[in-house]
Amino acid sequence: MERIAVLTSGGDAPGMNAAVRAVVRKGHHYGLDVVGVYRGYTGLIQGDFKTMDLGSVGDIIHRGGTILYSARSEAFKTPEGQNKAVEKLKEHGIDGLVVIGGDGSFRGAQALTARGFPAVGVPGTIDNDIPGTDFTIGFDTAINTVIECIDRIRDTATSHERTYVVEVMGRDAGDIALWAGLAEGAESILIPEAPYDLDEIVKRLERGSQRGKKHSIIIVAEGVGSGVEIGRQIKDKAGFETRVTVLGHIQRGGTPTAFDRVLASRMGSKAVDLLLQGESDQMVASRKNEIIGVRFDEAFTMKHQPDMSIYDLASILAI
Amino acid sequence: MERIAVLTSGGDAPGMNAAVRAVVRKGHHYGLDVVGVYRGYTGLIQGDFKTMDLGSVGDIIHRGGTILYSARSEAFKTPEGQNKAVEKLKEHGIDGLVVIGGDGSFRGAQALTARGFPAVGVPGTIDNDIPGTDFTIGFDTAINTVIECIDRIRDTATSHERTYVVEVMGRDAGDIALWAGLAEGAESILIPEAPYDLDEIVKRLERGSQRGKKHSIIIVAEGVGSGVEIGRQIKDKAGFETRVTVLGHIQRGGTPTAFDRVLASRMGSKAVDLLLQGESDQMVASRKNEIIGVRFDEAFTMKHQPDMSIYDLASILAI
Amino acid sequence: MERIAVLTSGGDAPGMNAAVRAVVRKGHHYGLDVVGVYRGYTGLIQGDFKTMDLGSVGDIIHRGGTILYSARSEAFKTPEGQNKAVEKLKEHGIDGLVVIGGDGSFRGAQALTARGFPAVGVPGTIDNDIPGTDFTIGFDTAINTVIECIDRIRDTATSHERTYVVEVMGRDAGDIALWAGLAEGAESILIPEAPYDLDEIVKRLERGSQRGKKHSIIIVAEGVGSGVEIGRQIKDKAGFETRVTVLGHIQRGGTPTAFDRVLASRMGSKAVDLLLQGESDQMVASRKNEIIGVRFDEAFTMKHQPDMSIYDLASILAI
Amino acid sequence: MERIAVLTSGGDAPGMNAAVRAVVRKGHHYGLDVVGVYRGYTGLIQGDFKTMDLGSVGDIIHRGGTILYSARSEAFKTPEGQNKAVEKLKEHGIDGLVVIGGDGSFRGAQALTARGFPAVGVPGTIDNDIPGTDFTIGFDTAINTVIECIDRIRDTATSHERTYVVEVMGRDAGDIALWAGLAEGAESILIPEAPYDLDEIVKRLERGSQRGKKHSIIIVAEGVGSGVEIGRQIKDKAGFETRVTVLGHIQRGGTPTAFDRVLASRMGSKAVDLLLQGESDQMVASRKNEIIGVRFDEAFTMKHQPDMSIYDLASILAI
Repeated sequence: MERIAVLTSGGDAPGMNAAVRAVVRKGHHYGLDVVGVYRGYTGLIQGDFKTMDLGSVGDIIHRGGTILYSARSEAFKTPEGQNKAVEKLKEHGIDGLVVIGGDGSFRGAQALTARGFPAVGVPGTIDNDIPGTDFTIGFDTAINTVIECIDRIRDTATSHERTYVVEVMGRDAGDIALWAGLAEGAESILIPEAPYDLDEIVKRLERGSQRGKKHSIIIVAEGVGSGVEIGRQIKDKAGFETRVTVLGHIQRGGTPTAFDRVLASRMGSKAVDLLLQGESDQMVASRKNEIIGVRFDEAFTMKHQPDMSIYDLASILAI
Repeated sequence: MERIAVLTSGGDAPGMNAAVRAVVRKGHHYGLDVVGVYRGYTGLIQGDFKTMDLGSVGDIIHRGGTILYSARSEAFKTPEGQNKAVEKLKEHGIDGLVVIGGDGSFRGAQALTARGFPAVGVPGTIDNDIPGTDFTIGFDTAINTVIECIDRIRDTATSHERTYVVEVMGRDAGDIALWAGLAEGAESILIPEAPYDLDEIVKRLERGSQRGKKHSIIIVAEGVGSGVEIGRQIKDKAGFETRVTVLGHIQRGGTPTAFDRVLASRMGSKAVDLLLQGESDQMVASRKNEIIGVRFDEAFTMKHQPDMSIYDLASILAI
Repeated sequence: MERIAVLTSGGDAPGMNAAVRAVVRKGHHYGLDVVGVYRGYTGLIQGDFKTMDLGSVGDIIHRGGTILYSARSEAFKTPEGQNKAVEKLKEHGIDGLVVIGGDGSFRGAQALTARGFPAVGVPGTIDNDIPGTDFTIGFDTAINTVIECIDRIRDTATSHERTYVVEVMGRDAGDIALWAGLAEGAESILIPEAPYDLDEIVKRLERGSQRGKKHSIIIVAEGVGSGVEIGRQIKDKAGFETRVTVLGHIQRGGTPTAFDRVLASRMGSKAVDLLLQGESDQMVASRKNEIIGVRFDEAFTMKHQPDMSIYDLASILAI
Repeated sequence: MERIAVLTSGGDAPGMNAAVRAVVRKGHHYGLDVVGVYRGYTGLIQGDFKTMDLGSVGDIIHRGGTILYSARSEAFKTPEGQNKAVEKLKEHGIDGLVVIGGDGSFRGAQALTARGFPAVGVPGTIDNDIPGTDFTIGFDTAINTVIECIDRIRDTATSHERTYVVEVMGRDAGDIALWAGLAEGAESILIPEAPYDLDEIVKRLERGSQRGKKHSIIIVAEGVGSGVEIGRQIKDKAGFETRVTVLGHIQRGGTPTAFDRVLASRMGSKAVDLLLQGESDQMVASRKNEIIGVRFDEAFTMKHQPDMSIYDLASILAI
């Protein structure tokens, strides 16, 4: 292997730049040429490549977003697009590819490996919803952004002695809601993985109010439904107003945390190791604090499960 | 004057605690007793008072929200409520009142002065929309919270090369939108004080895109309409998607900035000075960096105007 | 077991409050009375106790420091002091104790178990230097504080194209230096666990400068020596000035991160579980993402080792 | 005037990039060419110039430091150096210069105007010590960085009930110490502009301790002397230990606050206006919230005075 490429794909996540940096620097450490691909699979098909020297990834470890940009590619979903991509890679003398992104992006990577082109995935998404790894790059930053926002809301909630509903990201996975909910002492946490019981939610609010709680916070993962709708249901059932905040895209950006920078550095580095060891068709994963390779097929057959012990603990502690 | 009271009223704002601290400590400096009133005018009618010693305001200068809580009071809007409030104040031997809050709270204070009870206002609201003062307590914190959020959105906006619409607070006043808009280099700023021209907005987006801008940000004050609706209008006109974020209540909370802590300390202190000088029926104001007293009547006849030079400058610089 | 106590001891760490909250709430969940002890072992000897209801730990999960205060106690190091402490605990009908603190605090806890009094430790220290657990409460917050500070220094370092030496905490353990160093892309990381080679440091600086690096950062754990002294050595050897910053006590405070709040909640909860299961003479530990109990004796015979793979990786990536 | 240049000089300050952006964009607004000069006067003498189009200052408004770099130039202090600079400017067809920096940088600008070359200054320094303007670019960010750090120290100070001495920047001016001191409720503030009385400092500490204060903070501007030395004096006099933190270079960096971004945008814009109006030998100033031009000679004959009303107020409120 003499020349590898790296791209970021799917929703961006803080720490992706740290991962790109690790791929480039580790590649150079082994004497490889490293090529950056712009705009994910779109750039792969178009041959939108750029040679990356050591300095090209200087001063980016702490920047949110991705210097390689990200985009969706309909073209790449077709066999023609995938063939085109392999052609472009070979045309540029590239021997291996690192794909930083989520679940969907890894299926793209697998389409390349099915064509005999070595590719390895690095899990980058704020949602932490990729099966096979305990943590994804960007998750720790996202939950810290969420709790920073809710810490602010807490001030005004206390001043006015109100109940706030906060909708956080997580279409399919409740991880952000769970971690942020435990970290904020939220009265109730609504996640896609568990049914919610409006009576129980209202009962908890009333019990809290009776023992003098100055505010209550309910966290709703977007996959459960709109925070506004949940607020309305509570009002109908409980008879009091709630205020609703939808955190939205601020959860995607920001300077990555130390945890995410370290995770991204390790994962990016591991991806290069795997390629050099002749491995492919794998994603890098963090399991029990170890960085390992996991075959795509293994990951794809697993189902992501959030840590439900957090759910139970939050419920006990936010009494 | 031997005993004064202080309350916070209306929407809470970061720095209110610093203002409460200043009233209490400055009062003690002059040998006064100081009484805190809970939940604004509601507590005033109910006699929900608490004597505040020096330690009662320790370790609060940096806390968002208000330790005295805030609430709306329908009862206080009636003459009976207002009479009741004066009774309660006299019953507790209180000679003067400091009201920390917004426009509406000051009208309440004036109702007391009309009954011969000395009262002074301290402008606290994130909206900066109180006529007669250049700045209100909480505004500086709010705009810093807004730009911190938009800095995060900027990361993901750049990664995906998208246009973001961000709705910020400001029902009647565009100050938050204006300051945050200039500070973020927003392409367009929509405020209640100026009509907006969709053609112009779209033209600016297209011009930016042509010269290679990686993202665009449009800031909308809530008084103009919903950010979601503006996003839809842009899509209809321009033919491309935008992402919308409504910042909501996170703008109300958080640790106050240095500017707000200093402003609040000065204003709270000045309010006590005014009462001791026999002044009443006034609000404290910051004008051209000086802290002065302004008669309520003078303030009420003025109309708040945001600094429109910011509007023009933002438009020139975000080309 | 009907009544348990909790104290914080040694240097404070962000997240200690979240751990106290978890002990109190989990205790109440099981129907226990929970008593807070002020100022660590000092308060234990003096019987400075306070019954803690559910509300007593409200609104503290996000606060740095410890509401129970911390202090050093010479008296408790004597057998008399330890006997006195057990007496006081029994006098108040207390059946078990949770000690939140570091290594030294756990030896104190063991002195109590040696007298037949059940005690369990929860590892809280920013240094991450407690053998037997992968992470301690406060470490994640501390490294995030450090990188936030170095991100700032980076701006000015780049503007002036200078080399900065940053001294971070860690008398015996290099964990803070290692994680922050990898997360910041520091050129060199000096830790107590590894000898440093001034020639190598200077060579790396020169190589970086030759390939156009705009700034360099060297991180020194305090256990290695003073940052000022290291700066002087570099100057003598390399012939150019460095700027030195000693981060100091700002590393101890601040709002805990999501990771620390979750870890503290889990560990505090686990400590109560252990006591109720009749366990004692143990500390709670996080190993491979699992929260378990580890016998004090086992922990005390281990030696803390930082993850040296970070050291090697940082050296490769910050080329 | 057809072509202007801009440089940053002296210590960097957050907001300098926003000022550079404003100069470039406002220049283009008027149809001018704008040239960036690297490394201050060093680059001016060397002709290290770069034409700056609209995109060259994109995405920098929120970045600390200066993209034009800064450096000290001994060569420029000589008449030969100054002549050389004017030659270089003329050689490149440049008609006017904007110098963003401090006092010393403005004297350099005046050396150019004395040679008939139009130059205007924009005050950028965190110290706020430039006579003739109420605020300088970077000051607001610096005091917010300082209070963020002291907020952290406050947590640990309270937990251990200790006294902390914090040394902040300010060799000749106490502005940072004063604002941060009032904003933090510091017991004592030591600035170069006022003598300090150790007896009074100790008396205040003792009085605070007697009324149950959990911690005390003393802020020392570096111009007064080393924080370590002040800490030692307090120990000798009062008999108890203090902890000392020297904030150092973290005060120079970081994302600029909203206030600094707005101030920098206005000032940079005004500088271009002045040049186009045929003005020179002036600095831009903010006085009573207005942005005006002030002749260098006028500014140089004034002496900067911090707002001593803050000193008195802090002393009253931190009782």
